[in-house]
Amino acid sequence: MQALVFDADNKLKLDPNYQDPQPGVDEAVIRPLRMGVCATDLEICRGYMGFTGVLGHEFVGVVEQVGKKSAKDWIGKRVVGTINCVCGKCDMCRGGLPEHCRDRTVLGIAGRDGCFADLFTLPLRNLLEVPEHVDDDHAVFTEPLAAAYQIVRQLTIEGRPFVTVLGDGRLGLLCAQVMSQLNATVRCVGKHTDKLALCEKWGVKHRLLEDVGMRADQDIVVDCTGSASGLGTAMRMVRPRGKIVLKTTVAPNAKNPPVDLSPLVVHEIQLIGSRCGPFTEALSALSQQKVDVLSLISRRAKLADGVDALNTAAQPDIVKVLLEP
Amino acid sequence: MQALVFDADNKLKLDPNYQDPQPGVDEAVIRPLRMGVCATDLEICRGYMGFTGVLGHEFVGVVEQVGKKSAKDWIGKRVVGTINCVCGKCDMCRGGLPEHCRDRTVLGIAGRDGCFADLFTLPLRNLLEVPEHVDDDHAVFTEPLAAAYQIVRQLTIEGRPFVTVLGDGRLGLLCAQVMSQLNATVRCVGKHTDKLALCEKWGVKHRLLEDVGMRADQDIVVDCTGSASGLGTAMRMVRPRGKIVLKTTVAPNAKNPPVDLSPLVVHEIQLIGSRCGPFTEALSALSQQKVDVLSLISRRAKLADGVDALNTAAQPDIVKVLLEP
Repeated sequence: MQALVFDADNKLKLDPNYQDPQPGVDEAVIRPLRMGVCATDLEICRGYMGFTGVLGHEFVGVVEQVGKKSAKDWIGKRVVGTINCVCGKCDMCRGGLPEHCRDRTVLGIAGRDGCFADLFTLPLRNLLEVPEHVDDDHAVFTEPLAAAYQIVRQLTIEGRPFVTVLGDGRLGLLCAQVMSQLNATVRCVGKHTDKLALCEKWGVKHRLLEDVGMRADQDIVVDCTGSASGLGTAMRMVRPRGKIVLKTTVAPNAKNPPVDLSPLVVHEIQLIGSRCGPFTEALSALSQQKVDVLSLISRRAKLADGVDALNTAAQPDIVKVLLEP
Repeated sequence: MQALVFDADNKLKLDPNYQDPQPGVDEAVIRPLRMGVCATDLEICRGYMGFTGVLGHEFVGVVEQVGKKSAKDWIGKRVVGTINCVCGKCDMCRGGLPEHCRDRTVLGIAGRDGCFADLFTLPLRNLLEVPEHVDDDHAVFTEPLAAAYQIVRQLTIEGRPFVTVLGDGRLGLLCAQVMSQLNATVRCVGKHTDKLALCEKWGVKHRLLEDVGMRADQDIVVDCTGSASGLGTAMRMVRPRGKIVLKTTVAPNAKNPPVDLSPLVVHEIQLIGSRCGPFTEALSALSQQKVDVLSLISRRAKLADGVDALNTAAQPDIVKVLLEP
C-alpha cells in the first residue's frame, strides 16, 4: 500500500510499497476517507517526539477488517478514533486517565504508524461510529475539535471572564469557536487578516496581534500559536493570578529564544498543559453543527501528493489541508 | 547612613554615605535588627528585575519614626513587614489582590530601596508587630516562611498526595517543613547531604537528587531549586495531570539551556507560579514554633561586611546568611 512516511533520515516521502498492516486481536484495519494535517505532523517533521513511521492522526474512515475473535459487526462502519492506544493496566489507566497511559502508543506520533496511508490499525475500543448525517468533511475534524473541548474541561469559568485565544491557525480557530460557547468574553488574536475574517463570520471578536495592547488584563489566554514565542506573548496578556492554557508544542530548537518564565512566578500565573480531548463532545458538536469546520478547509490533496500537501500546510496563509485516498 | 547598594554599573558595594530615608505621609522609618539574604538578592546581582538601589527585603526591625499625621504609637515597636507597597486604587488592589498591584514598588526588588541599610522606609499598613516571645532570629524568617505558606494557599490537598520539594536551599528547607504539616507524603530532594541532614532532624523524608528515579509519579512538585534546570527535573518527576509549583526565578541568561515545555502539554501538567505569602500565618507558625528556622542559619555578618556576606550566601554549602547592624 502507499503511505506517507517520515523516515530515519529525517525525510518525508511517499512509500508506494509500504507493508499492509495486520490487525492485532482487538484491533481494526481502517481505510481512511479523509485525513487532516495537523501542526503536530509538521513539528514531527522538524524532529518533535523523535517519531519515525507513517504520519497522521486525524481521520474518518471505514473499518475493513477486524482482528480474530473481535466483533465482526464493526466491519463496514464509518468511524473516527481516539489516538492514544493504552495498556489498561498501568497506574494511569487504572486511575481513570488512560490518555496518559504509561505504555501507550499514539497514532502517527509515538510508537505506532499513523493514518496517512491506504490502511492503518487502531484498537476497536478507540473507535466511535460517525452518525450518518455527519459527512466526511465534518467528521475528520473530530480529533482537533476534541482537543479544543479539552480546554473547557480543564477550566472553571466563573463570572464572565475575558478570554484570549492566541493564534488564528487550525487549532486557534476551533478553540475560538468552542470558547465562544461559554459565558465568557472571547476574542481571537492572530497575525492573519484573512484567517481572522472567519471570526467575523462567526460573530467572534478578533484582533490583529499588532493592534493589541499588552495590558495583562485577560483572565485566560489559550496559546494556540504553535510558536515558541506564543507563551511570552500570553504572559504579557494574562492578568496576575490568571491562567494560560498551553496547547503549543514545538520541537526543541536551539534557534528558539529561551523563554523567561519569571513572569509566571512574579504574577502567580497558572500554566495549564492541554492535549487530547473528548471525542463524544466533539462529535456531538459536529452533529449539531455548533462549530463551523468547513470554512477551515484551505486545500485538498490526494494522499499520493502528501509530501507537497504537508509543505503547503506549513504556509502561513493556509488553515486546514485535507488528504483523500 | 551605610547601605548595601547594587548600582547602575552592576556592582554591589557598601555605601557609607547613603542618604537617610525620609518617611512619606503614611510611612515608617525602620531600623533593622536582623536582615536575611535571599536567593532573589543574589539574582538581582545577576541582573534579575533590572533593579538598582539598596538591596534586601527580609528583616525584623524597630520603628524609629513615622510620617506626619501617622499614628505615633508605632514608634519603638518591633516589626516585620510585607514587601509590596501598593496603590490601593488599581484593578488588582480593588479586586483583593493588592500584592499584584499594578503600580506597586517592592522593597529592595522594584522601585524602592531595600532593608540592607541602617534605616529604610515602608508604609505603616505593611507592618506587623512581632510578639515579644518571638526573638529576632525567628522573626527575620517571616517573609520567606510566608512565601512557603503561599504554596499551601494555592494548592488543594486531596487524598494523601505524594509531594516532592525540589531543592534543599533556604526556601526548599522551609517549604519542606511547611508541606510536611499537610496530609501528604512529603520528601525533600536536593544535592547536599549536609543540608538534607536537617530534614532527618525534622522527621521529613529526604533523598539526594542523584538517587531519585525520574518516575513521573509525584502528584505535586515544588521547584525551590533557584536553578534554570529545576523545572526540567520537576517535569520528569511529576505525574501526568500533576502540579508543579514554581518558586524559582532566575535572571534571563543566554547560558541557561532552553527549557523544553512540551512535556507540560503532553502530560497536561499544571505549572503554578508562586511568590509572596501570608505574613500572619508565618508569624503565627514562628510564634508556635511549628517550624525550625534557627537550624537554617549558616552565617552571621555585620551589614558593613555585606558584600562578603552576599558572596558567601552564593556558596552551595550555605543556607541562610543573616546580617546585623
